[in-house]
Amino acid sequence: MSSVKLSQIGELSLLEQIRKNFSGKSKRVLVGIGDDAAVVKPAGKTMLLTTDMMVEGIHFDLRFTTPYQIGFKLVSVNVSDIYAMGGKPLYFMLNLAARNTMTLEFIETFFQGVKEAVHFYDATLVGGDLSATEERIFLSATMIGYTERYVKRSGARIGDHIYITGNLGDSACGLELLKKIKQPVLFEKERSLIKEKKGAEKHRFQKSALSWKTMGPLLRRHLLPVAKKTESFVRHASSMIDISDGLLIDLTRLCDESNVGARIYLTNIPISREMKDAAAYLRISPWKLALSGGEDYQILFTAPPGKPVRAQYIGDIVKSERTMIDGSGREKPFSAMGYQHFRKQKEEQ
Amino acid sequence: MSSVKLSQIGELSLLEQIRKNFSGKSKRVLVGIGDDAAVVKPAGKTMLLTTDMMVEGIHFDLRFTTPYQIGFKLVSVNVSDIYAMGGKPLYFMLNLAARNTMTLEFIETFFQGVKEAVHFYDATLVGGDLSATEERIFLSATMIGYTERYVKRSGARIGDHIYITGNLGDSACGLELLKKIKQPVLFEKERSLIKEKKGAEKHRFQKSALSWKTMGPLLRRHLLPVAKKTESFVRHASSMIDISDGLLIDLTRLCDESNVGARIYLTNIPISREMKDAAAYLRISPWKLALSGGEDYQILFTAPPGKPVRAQYIGDIVKSERTMIDGSGREKPFSAMGYQHFRKQKEEQ
Repeated sequence: MSSVKLSQIGELSLLEQIRKNFSGKSKRVLVGIGDDAAVVKPAGKTMLLTTDMMVEGIHFDLRFTTPYQIGFKLVSVNVSDIYAMGGKPLYFMLNLAARNTMTLEFIETFFQGVKEAVHFYDATLVGGDLSATEERIFLSATMIGYTERYVKRSGARIGDHIYITGNLGDSACGLELLKKIKQPVLFEKERSLIKEKKGAEKHRFQKSALSWKTMGPLLRRHLLPVAKKTESFVRHASSMIDISDGLLIDLTRLCDESNVGARIYLTNIPISREMKDAAAYLRISPWKLALSGGEDYQILFTAPPGKPVRAQYIGDIVKSERTMIDGSGREKPFSAMGYQHFRKQKEEQ
Repeated sequence: MSSVKLSQIGELSLLEQIRKNFSGKSKRVLVGIGDDAAVVKPAGKTMLLTTDMMVEGIHFDLRFTTPYQIGFKLVSVNVSDIYAMGGKPLYFMLNLAARNTMTLEFIETFFQGVKEAVHFYDATLVGGDLSATEERIFLSATMIGYTERYVKRSGARIGDHIYITGNLGDSACGLELLKKIKQPVLFEKERSLIKEKKGAEKHRFQKSALSWKTMGPLLRRHLLPVAKKTESFVRHASSMIDISDGLLIDLTRLCDESNVGARIYLTNIPISREMKDAAAYLRISPWKLALSGGEDYQILFTAPPGKPVRAQYIGDIVKSERTMIDGSGREKPFSAMGYQHFRKQKEEQ
């Protein structure tokens, strides 16, 4: 069964399987997968709508990412955008263009990752579209959420503190490790999932100069990121954005929208012990990873000083200049350095 | 300007342009393009959610489709799903993966098509995502609509009449013509759009054995389809579906969901004079185009007999058999014949 190719089963049977797999009832979903459109009840005062894409070879590499991880991450990436507006996710929709030489197992495992994540975030898959393609796998997803109060990127005011919800650069460092490891890495839940089916010996993780204790959290942050909830501080936040393209590019976006500047203190940037060790081993600057590495999915937000927020204070909103201050007190300007599609990336210094 | 490549401008400038182009205010949209998620007001008793994909080489061919047409059609396809549930479209989201060798003009013209269509259907573009890719262009879109009363595929009852909102096979016939013409065909609005920029001489339409009067409507139905509104009959409809993959496959879906059969009368199937003439010229059976041709975007629905619906009656819902009756009264079974992704298409007879 598992090695059956998509070309042998066709779109209709595949749809039928997906539908069965996601047919759980929800009071809010009146019509789920299988009609022209899903019918759902609106919630909250306002609805939040976000959509994201993942393209094989651009956003993920099948040589070292499992379909389970791709599915899980696709959901997390969209949830992160909903959280970054101060909301909660509700309804998820999915598009998948796949090669017809791909196996049913691949698709099943991908949907297992989607299912786990959707369940984890308390959302529901309500629809989607399938297509054949011949080269890269293409995924896109839409998440619909709701909120009573939303927080935009544009609300930062001079004097606000700048906060971050957790360590930066772990994901980018995990990606650099993967490029060395050059094979998929499985985590607990997923390992049992795969083992059940065919024994995962060939997926076993090879020995390395770095311990699993160091690498594990970094790889997990890249492969199975969990979006950061914002409910504990959202009522104090004046502006919010999730860090998907690197701290500096996303802070620049927030400043541009708010029409303000920012001064950040490099010594305050949260960097994990694991990332520091792995970066040293990889001979990459941990600062480069923390400031410009993508896919952190931490939340960057601002709040007036004196508010009781449990997050890392990294700097202040100022009038217009955008600077970083290092440990010895030197101040230098920063600009948006991070991944940009289409443009050839300049080497950063 | 127009021949500027995406690689020269990068994602951020492109996003800025799109944002400016779609920044029109709407009372329902609190935050549009440019934040982590769009913030919108819910409408109606229930929300409708649908998503669709269009992949280059599978759903469209750039050798004979303009970017304007692709943009327009992407919107129509999604609106058609909303109409097929009995609703009205509201919020539109878009994902585009493009090669960085593509021109800014291509992207601008594509967005012009999206903009015209979104305006035409009284919806609003509220967000999206851009990515680079290296081969096929990949598009996906999500439409969020609303309705007070929704009509599912599963409500057809024995004795109901089966109706269709317009001619079948025009789009499939238009596609066959395009494969002969082998170049893009421009329509009025679009022609002036292009002319303004660079004179459209090279886009001029070549002479053919068929008149423009015959070909025009067929080509238009394929390239710039307009979704069929359902508000005039929706209160009588017991089940509804839009025909995207061919009458027989979509009627089969409706019957499967409703757990009923159908008997259709071939002589009642609406076929345009233009399609009949073009099919004769192309030596293709007009019945094949009408019964199994895709992308009609007509609405197929059922209603109890005696209801005042202005649509073409094509058959009856029966207990379980699925048959077609031809002009001489012969009855033969039909099955789902139409396009299926992944599966190699069997030649139909």
